[in-house]
Amino acid sequence: MKDVPKACVVIIGNEILSGRTQDTNLAFLGRRCDELGILLAEARVIPDVEQTIIDHVNECRALYDYVFTTGGIGPTHDDITSASIARAFGVALERHPAAVAVLERFYEPGRLNEARLRMADIPAGATLIQNPVSGAPGFQIKNVFVLPGVPDILQAMFDGMTDRLVGGAPILTGNVVTGLFEGELALGLGAVQQRFPDVAIGSYPYFRQGRPGVNLVLRSTDRARLDAATLAVRGLIAGLGGSVLGG
Amino acid sequence: MKDVPKACVVIIGNEILSGRTQDTNLAFLGRRCDELGILLAEARVIPDVEQTIIDHVNECRALYDYVFTTGGIGPTHDDITSASIARAFGVALERHPAAVAVLERFYEPGRLNEARLRMADIPAGATLIQNPVSGAPGFQIKNVFVLPGVPDILQAMFDGMTDRLVGGAPILTGNVVTGLFEGELALGLGAVQQRFPDVAIGSYPYFRQGRPGVNLVLRSTDRARLDAATLAVRGLIAGLGGSVLGG
Repeated sequence: MKDVPKACVVIIGNEILSGRTQDTNLAFLGRRCDELGILLAEARVIPDVEQTIIDHVNECRALYDYVFTTGGIGPTHDDITSASIARAFGVALERHPAAVAVLERFYEPGRLNEARLRMADIPAGATLIQNPVSGAPGFQIKNVFVLPGVPDILQAMFDGMTDRLVGGAPILTGNVVTGLFEGELALGLGAVQQRFPDVAIGSYPYFRQGRPGVNLVLRSTDRARLDAATLAVRGLIAGLGGSVLGG
Repeated sequence: MKDVPKACVVIIGNEILSGRTQDTNLAFLGRRCDELGILLAEARVIPDVEQTIIDHVNECRALYDYVFTTGGIGPTHDDITSASIARAFGVALERHPAAVAVLERFYEPGRLNEARLRMADIPAGATLIQNPVSGAPGFQIKNVFVLPGVPDILQAMFDGMTDRLVGGAPILTGNVVTGLFEGELALGLGAVQQRFPDVAIGSYPYFRQGRPGVNLVLRSTDRARLDAATLAVRGLIAGLGGSVLGG
């Protein structure tokens, strides 16, 4: 899939690495990138350690067109993403007047304490990303988009800022599910993949209620080629005496 | 947490990056590492691209005591993990007699086709990791442990090979849940963190049925310090007029 901008997600948070929290933001961002014609090419999960955040963000923003970070922009001591990203870019962390104004509108009088005001500290030169759920904004600095970790809030913020992202042709997907074993399909599937190098064909076996099956996922930016490859996969399954269960 | 071996998980699979499949292996491995006294320090999610796999595996195996890869060891054309890891180590990919014997026992006569036999192709010098669920083994080469992507199979295989992993003191965790807002807790919580630098305190806000709350997670290898810090957090919540909802 050429001419498609590439993105990287950097998930910041000890709670994801320790398994205390099940991340769901990566799958959301992956689906949205597909729709926007952006290839999510890599993701990293890193701890709340300043130098680690700096190193990974600097590496990823040089490698990819877009970097989306999640987590670490709340009011507590372990929320160090904003300060770390300011350091990654070599700019000051400044109290942003428009962010303060947002927080003043969001909190009842007397509730906007110093800890909460920290959420208005934004790297110099960044532009805010609106938070329609809980007030405290994210921000964009060059090609890095800094988003929160709470899924509901991240999703609302991401969907409100997609006009800042320029994608290529949307990545179209098709899928075919069959109860055949993956090992029975493999040879023929490899031949279909060779005939359609511009369609990425993935094969994902599963077991449900003790019965095996395979979910075949096809991805391309070309609708006609995607449809032709999907037809070829269905033909392969029929030729092997299998049935298509879904897709 | 000093003197604790560090691990990295490398999740290999386009389906995770596209959001078609929700990864759950990272959370499982994170919890198991905690129990084993291994700090899961980083994870990466990368596509099924040979050079990408080679580069990340080589980088991660130099940085960390243990590397666990997931995905890409099945029979289909997109299963390129084993061949890529052989290339990362500069060794041949060889048909492993013991792995062939396992597959011969697992499949009914006549069912072990060439595609399935590919699952017995293992980097030279690697030792097998038994698969009690579906036959095809994983393997260990030096500090890299190559596991499948299907969660049930990965979990069974990991739990069967933990005698190969040497951990430090188990990482103990405690947690305290409160309905206070994170912004109300933040100042006092930072002070508790300063008093207990050897206890990592994470603060994770959530919204459930429209009501906010915070899940505070404390982690340490020292039981007494963990308990003292947990008590301090509970005292902080009480002092702010909040209640402890769980933990």
